[in-house]
Amino acid sequence: MQDLLYEGKAKKIYREGEGLVRQRFKDIATAFNGEKKATVVGKAALNARFCALFFELLEKEALPTHFVSFDPPDSLITLELKMIPLEVVVRNRVAGSLSKRFPAEDKKSLEPPVVEYFLKNDAQNDPKVEEDLLVSLFHYDKKELLELRSFALKVNEILGFFVQTKGVDLIDLKLEFGRSPDGSILLGDEISPDTCRFWDVETGESLDKDRFRFEKGDLIEGYQKLATRLGLGGS
Amino acid sequence: MQDLLYEGKAKKIYREGEGLVRQRFKDIATAFNGEKKATVVGKAALNARFCALFFELLEKEALPTHFVSFDPPDSLITLELKMIPLEVVVRNRVAGSLSKRFPAEDKKSLEPPVVEYFLKNDAQNDPKVEEDLLVSLFHYDKKELLELRSFALKVNEILGFFVQTKGVDLIDLKLEFGRSPDGSILLGDEISPDTCRFWDVETGESLDKDRFRFEKGDLIEGYQKLATRLGLGGS
Repeated sequence: MQDLLYEGKAKKIYREGEGLVRQRFKDIATAFNGEKKATVVGKAALNARFCALFFELLEKEALPTHFVSFDPPDSLITLELKMIPLEVVVRNRVAGSLSKRFPAEDKKSLEPPVVEYFLKNDAQNDPKVEEDLLVSLFHYDKKELLELRSFALKVNEILGFFVQTKGVDLIDLKLEFGRSPDGSILLGDEISPDTCRFWDVETGESLDKDRFRFEKGDLIEGYQKLATRLGLGGS
Repeated sequence: MQDLLYEGKAKKIYREGEGLVRQRFKDIATAFNGEKKATVVGKAALNARFCALFFELLEKEALPTHFVSFDPPDSLITLELKMIPLEVVVRNRVAGSLSKRFPAEDKKSLEPPVVEYFLKNDAQNDPKVEEDLLVSLFHYDKKELLELRSFALKVNEILGFFVQTKGVDLIDLKLEFGRSPDGSILLGDEISPDTCRFWDVETGESLDKDRFRFEKGDLIEGYQKLATRLGLGGS
């Protein structure tokens, strides 16, 4: 029935109709560019629900995204985009690869938030790249980069504010963008505890994929805790 | 007679008088954060002459530097600055640490030139740091960073044009800045084949410290070739 267009580490993309695709999440967790991998029953359905929640929130705030609808239990129907092969990371606090680079600064607050870029290139392990290099070596348009940066900062602000009201800190997030057929830039990919760091405001407990990366506790337990906090109720 | 203020890897700094210091170059080459080290007779005098040539050129173009005078054979008299603990690198072509990061892009031209920053911190091996992080984590002033960037790009332009007319390509250069007592920003440190990459336009031969780093030929022979090209005549 369904035409598989692409299989990624955490989801499969199927053709769904004219200009539409189905993003079907997988019950698989991976980390460290796929070096660590495990089956995690229930993860797909949770992440699809997080995505629906976050994309609806952003759409309500007039940010253009690829989101069309949530198709329970584990799929999103989205616009088909021509993806920009770049990960745009926004950081509100030092964690992850940044605390590896600057261990003495671990967990420090970043004000204003810091934007980083990574080339999507598994063979090169998604190398970090700076705005200057994107323009002068990889031929990105400076204006388009500023648009991505400003878009990413708005997503960070909206999401960060929303989860804060639920007792959760948004530590950092990774976004990917694409173009619709008319050339406009839309937020694509996913927004979930796979691609964001969420910490309990009070205890600092990780409610995200760091549980899997660094054996910080059961992944599903953390994702369910986050779902409850964000008002998604029982599964 | 002289009051040693500081001994670096390539020079000693002495107090010279009110607000002045003597930068006395050493006949020593180091690389890879001091891991590789050798005595190179004649290097100090050559580098002092390169610095004098380059700083005079920049001063003539109205760029403020710490340079006061050349005191042969191996010293510069300079203003005493409060140094900003940052290396500002300008790249016109992919080489050095950048070609290590992107081997497939080695030697490619960068247009416009790319600016990078490194924290001066030997213990951490001078880590690379981005503008966003300098502001949000290390409390640099955004406006001051833009001033450093624009200053560094001007130095690159003036030096690049000058050596180009002599058949030499300026591939990249590392600059350090400081503040004079009135708070204004001046170019400090040195400008020499220790801190710049210079390639023969025709042959691509390195006329800089890469000869020492990567065993690309006798260092002094390369520095003397560069001196001759730049009109510094015999030693």
